[in-house]
Amino acid sequence: MLEYAAVMTTTQEENLPYDVFCKACPSRGTLEHVTGRWGSLTLGALHEGSLRFNELRRRVDGVSEKMLSQTLHALERDGLVHREAQPTNPPRVDYELTPLGHEVAERLLGLIHFVEGRMDDVLEARRRYDDARTD
Amino acid sequence: MLEYAAVMTTTQEENLPYDVFCKACPSRGTLEHVTGRWGSLTLGALHEGSLRFNELRRRVDGVSEKMLSQTLHALERDGLVHREAQPTNPPRVDYELTPLGHEVAERLLGLIHFVEGRMDDVLEARRRYDDARTD
Repeated sequence: MLEYAAVMTTTQEENLPYDVFCKACPSRGTLEHVTGRWGSLTLGALHEGSLRFNELRRRVDGVSEKMLSQTLHALERDGLVHREAQPTNPPRVDYELTPLGHEVAERLLGLIHFVEGRMDDVLEARRRYDDARTD
Repeated sequence: MLEYAAVMTTTQEENLPYDVFCKACPSRGTLEHVTGRWGSLTLGALHEGSLRFNELRRRVDGVSEKMLSQTLHALERDGLVHREAQPTNPPRVDYELTPLGHEVAERLLGLIHFVEGRMDDVLEARRRYDDARTD
C-alpha cells in the first residue's frame, strides 16, 4: 500500500488531472476560450484596466457585437472576467479581469508580445516558403 | 525638433511596429496560427521532440488528417515548424520545431500548464455562474 501511495503521488505530480491533449478534458474548452481569436484579444485589452462594452469593442478591432458578447460570457463563466452592472439609467456595465483572469492575461500577453516582436522573422520565413514553391 | 524626436523614440519603444489589436496587422494571423485550436496543441506536442505525421495525429487527440495538415502548413510557412522528408520508400516525414517555434511553444506551454493547473477554480466558477442563473 505504501508503495502504491508513493507511485500515486509521483504520478499526480507529473501528470496533472487536467490535460488539454485529451479531447474530453474540460481544460481544452477553457484553453480555447482563452486563446480563441477574440478571447485572447479581450483578455489582453482588459489587462490594461476595466472597460465598458463599447470601449472594449473599439479596442478589439474587428470584433462584432455578437462575438464580443459571446466571448465575454464564456470568460465570465470560466471566472476570468467580472461583469459589474451599475444601477444607473441607462445601466452602465464594466468588465474587468478577476485575479485569475489577470494571471492568465499576463501569460497570454507574454506570448502576444513575443509574437509581435518576431514578426519580421515570421514574414521573412513566409517569403522564403512562398518563393520555394513558385520557382 | 529635439522634443519631437524624443517623443517619437518613446512612442516607438512603447508601440512595436506590429500590433495584434489592429485587424490589418499580420501578427494577428500568426497569433491565430499559434493559439488556434490545433496550432497550440501541435506546437505543444512538438515541444516534446520531433514527430511523424501519424504520431502527431495520435498525440493531438481529436484532430482530423485534413486539419492537422493545414495546421502544419501554416506553422511551417510562419517559420515555426520544420518539415524534414527522408528519401526513403515509403517517404518518412518528420516535423520538428524551429528555434523560433521552440520559443513560441515554451510561452504557450506556460499558459497551457497554468490553465490546466487552475481548472478546479474554473469549474467552480462555472458552477457558481450556472447556479446563479437557474435560481
